[in-house]
Amino acid sequence: MSILIKNGYVIYGENLNVVKADVLIEGNRVVSVERNINEAADTVIDATGRVVSPGFINLHTHSPMGLLRGLADDLPLMDWLQNHIWPREAKLTPEYIKVGAYLGALEMIRSGTTTFLDMYFHMDKVAEAVLDAGLRGYLSYGMIDLGDPDRTEREIKEALREMEAIEKLNSDRVHFVFGPHAPYTCSIALLKEVRKLASEHRKLITIHVSETMAEIGQITERYGKSPVVLLDDIGFLGNDVIIAHGVWLDSRDIQILARHGVTVAHNPGSNMKLASGVMPLEKLLNAGVNVGLGTDGSASNNNLDMLEEMKLAALLHKVHNLDPTVADARTVFRMATQNGAKALRLNAGVIKEGYLADIIIINFNRPHLRPINDVISHLVYSANGNDVETTIVGGKILMLDGEVLTLDEEKVISEAEKVSEKLA
Amino acid sequence: MSILIKNGYVIYGENLNVVKADVLIEGNRVVSVERNINEAADTVIDATGRVVSPGFINLHTHSPMGLLRGLADDLPLMDWLQNHIWPREAKLTPEYIKVGAYLGALEMIRSGTTTFLDMYFHMDKVAEAVLDAGLRGYLSYGMIDLGDPDRTEREIKEALREMEAIEKLNSDRVHFVFGPHAPYTCSIALLKEVRKLASEHRKLITIHVSETMAEIGQITERYGKSPVVLLDDIGFLGNDVIIAHGVWLDSRDIQILARHGVTVAHNPGSNMKLASGVMPLEKLLNAGVNVGLGTDGSASNNNLDMLEEMKLAALLHKVHNLDPTVADARTVFRMATQNGAKALRLNAGVIKEGYLADIIIINFNRPHLRPINDVISHLVYSANGNDVETTIVGGKILMLDGEVLTLDEEKVISEAEKVSEKLA
Repeated sequence: MSILIKNGYVIYGENLNVVKADVLIEGNRVVSVERNINEAADTVIDATGRVVSPGFINLHTHSPMGLLRGLADDLPLMDWLQNHIWPREAKLTPEYIKVGAYLGALEMIRSGTTTFLDMYFHMDKVAEAVLDAGLRGYLSYGMIDLGDPDRTEREIKEALREMEAIEKLNSDRVHFVFGPHAPYTCSIALLKEVRKLASEHRKLITIHVSETMAEIGQITERYGKSPVVLLDDIGFLGNDVIIAHGVWLDSRDIQILARHGVTVAHNPGSNMKLASGVMPLEKLLNAGVNVGLGTDGSASNNNLDMLEEMKLAALLHKVHNLDPTVADARTVFRMATQNGAKALRLNAGVIKEGYLADIIIINFNRPHLRPINDVISHLVYSANGNDVETTIVGGKILMLDGEVLTLDEEKVISEAEKVSEKLA
Repeated sequence: MSILIKNGYVIYGENLNVVKADVLIEGNRVVSVERNINEAADTVIDATGRVVSPGFINLHTHSPMGLLRGLADDLPLMDWLQNHIWPREAKLTPEYIKVGAYLGALEMIRSGTTTFLDMYFHMDKVAEAVLDAGLRGYLSYGMIDLGDPDRTEREIKEALREMEAIEKLNSDRVHFVFGPHAPYTCSIALLKEVRKLASEHRKLITIHVSETMAEIGQITERYGKSPVVLLDDIGFLGNDVIIAHGVWLDSRDIQILARHGVTVAHNPGSNMKLASGVMPLEKLLNAGVNVGLGTDGSASNNNLDMLEEMKLAALLHKVHNLDPTVADARTVFRMATQNGAKALRLNAGVIKEGYLADIIIINFNRPHLRPINDVISHLVYSANGNDVETTIVGGKILMLDGEVLTLDEEKVISEAEKVSEKLA
C-alpha cells in the first residue's frame, strides 16, 4: 500500500520547516518528501491549500471519559470527584468503557490525534476499540490500593491480566503501560512492585504527580517530602516514566526529573478548569526536561482537541509569567508532537524519510486560517480540531476528507448516548 | 419572509433554559418558540441533533486585522506593535482595509458571531463589507492624537466624516460608535470633545482602558491617577461607554465603573497572548458591572472565534483564582450574548418572542459534543467555531448548513491573500 500526498505545505523534520512538497508513504513509513514526486501510488491525496503535519500525540488522557462530558463542571475538585465522577464511574461496566473508548477514538481521529497515552479501567476493552479505530494506544490500567495490602495484590493482578490481554492482541499499535494512579492513592509497596515489573517487562510507567496543592500537603504530611522526592527515594524514577500534570514542582523536584530523564505530560486545559494551578513550564524546559502535551479526560477539559490544547498551553504560560515570549508556537507544537513521541520511544512525531507515517492534513482554505502568513502559528493560535480533514496512522487512512473510514460514526455516537442515559 | 427552525434544542430566554422546541421567525423577529409549530414558512430548517442558540456578540475587535494574522507572535508588546504591526498598518489603504473587513466578516459568519463592536480605520469601508455580509456592525474609528492639537482636530474631523458616511448607508445593521483609542494615546481635549459629540449625536463610545501595567504607569505619571479615575474626573464615563480590556482595575476603579453603568469588554485570549494580565472578572461581576466578551483583533488572538473565547474566559479565571467555581459556563455564555446586547442597547442576545432573530444553529452530531449531557457546558467547554452550521441575522440567513450565502468565500480569501503579499 502506498499513499502520495500532493501539493501541501509540509511541516518537515524536527525543525518544523514548512515546505511546499509532496509526501510519499510506502507501507507504514514516509519514504520521500520532495517537490513533484511522480511515482504511482495506490491512493493520491490532493492537499492544495492544506497543511501536512505530524499527527498529535496526546500524552495524558482517560479516553472513555467522554461519556461523562459536561455532567459536572465549575465545581470544587473533591465535590466533582466524590459526588459526580466517582459515583458514575462505579456504574461503568467493561462494555460501557468500550463504548466510551470508541467515542474517544472517534473524537481523536476527527481532531488529528494519532497516538495517545491512556489511563483507565478495563484497558483490554479500550485496546479493542483502538485496534478497530486504527490509532496507536499506550494503555495503562489505573491502579489504586489506598494502602490496603489486599488491594495492592488485586491491583497488580488486574494490571498483569490486562497486560497479557493486550499483548495477546499482538499489534504494534497497542501497548500496555503501567499506571499506578498517584503517590497519594498508591502505597509504597505498590509503587515499588510496579517499578520492578516495568523493568522486568520493559514497559513504560505513567503516574499522576503533583497535580494539586492538596496532594502536596497530603504527601508532605505522610512522608515529610514532596511527591517527586518520595518517588526518587524509592528508586521509582527513570527515563521510562511519564508523570502527568507536574503542577506543583519545586526547583529540587525539577532537578530530580531532569537527572532521571523523566517526561512530564502537561495538561493546561484540565489544570485550568479544575483550578489545579500553573505548571512551571519554562523552568522544566530550561532544566532540559522533556515535556509533552495532553488533554486529560473529557470530564475536565471537556474535549480531546490537541490543537486547542496547544493554544491553551501557549496562552496560559504567557499570561502567568506576564511574558509574551514564553511558550512560543514552535515550542508548543513540538510538545504536542515530537516530545510525546520521544517519551513513548516512538519513531513518529515528525515528517521525515524513515519515520512512521502518522500524518494529518489540515484544511487551510478557511477564513480563520488565512492569509497563510505562518503555518505553525496558525496551527497553535488559530486552528481547532475541526480543521483536520485527513488522518493517517502507520500508512493507513483513518479519515479522508472529513469522512471517518474505520468507524461507524453514527453508531459510536448513538451507543455513547445510550450509555450516558444509563449512567444518569 | 419567515423561517421555521424545527426540532432543535433551543436555548430559551435570559435564563438559558434548554428546551426541545421549534422557533418561528417572521420578518426580523422571533415570533414563537414552542413544540410542534405547524405554520407554513418560506424556509424550514431541520435542526435535529442541533442546538439553536442566540448569535454571539463580539464586544471588542479590530475586524480587518485578520490580514496580519500570525505575522508576528510571541513578542514583547512594544516590539510587536512598533516593528511588526504599525509598519504594516501604515501600508493599509482603504481598499486593503475593506478586504480585511470581508475576511473578518466571513470568519464571524462561519463561527456564529452575529454582531460585533469594531475599532479600526476607514470604517465607512468596513461598513460596506458589513452590509454585504449581513452582519450587525458597531463601528468606531480609532482616534489617536498623542497630545498634538492639530491631530486632535484632524481626528475629530475624520470621525465625523466616517459617522456621516455610515449614517448615509441608512441601515439598522451598521452603527457609528466613537472610538478614542485610549487615555494614553488621546489628549484630554480629544476625550472631552468625544464625550460632548457622543451625547449630542446619541452615539456609544468605546475605548481601550487599563490594558497593560505600562499604561497604568504612564497615566499615573502623567496625571497622578488611574485611567478610570482620570476618565471619571473629566466627566467621560456613562452607561453609553464600553471600555475594552480593564485588566488592571483596582477596587476604586471598579466602584466608579459600577456607579456609571460602564460596560467592560473582556478579551481573555488577547490579554493572555500579549501577557497583559488577568482582569478582575469576579470583582467586576460582584460589583454589578456589565461585562461582555470580545476576541480583540486576529493579530493578538489569532482568530475571531467566540466559542473558543468563552472557554478561555472560563478557564483563565478558574486557574488564576485557584477556584473552579468562578466564571461558570452560564455566566460566561451570558457575557458572550446578552451582556453584549445590553451594552449595545440591542434587542438581541436571547431567543425569545419579540427579540431580533439573531440566531445560530450548532451541529451537535459530532463526537466532541456527545453525549448531550449539558448544552451550555458543551458550548463553553467542548465546542468551537467550526461547529456552527447556520447563521441568521435579523431573520436573514447568512450561512445555511455550512454554506455562506452572502459572500463569495473563495474570492474573499484569495483577495486577502493578495493583500497580505503586498504588506509583506
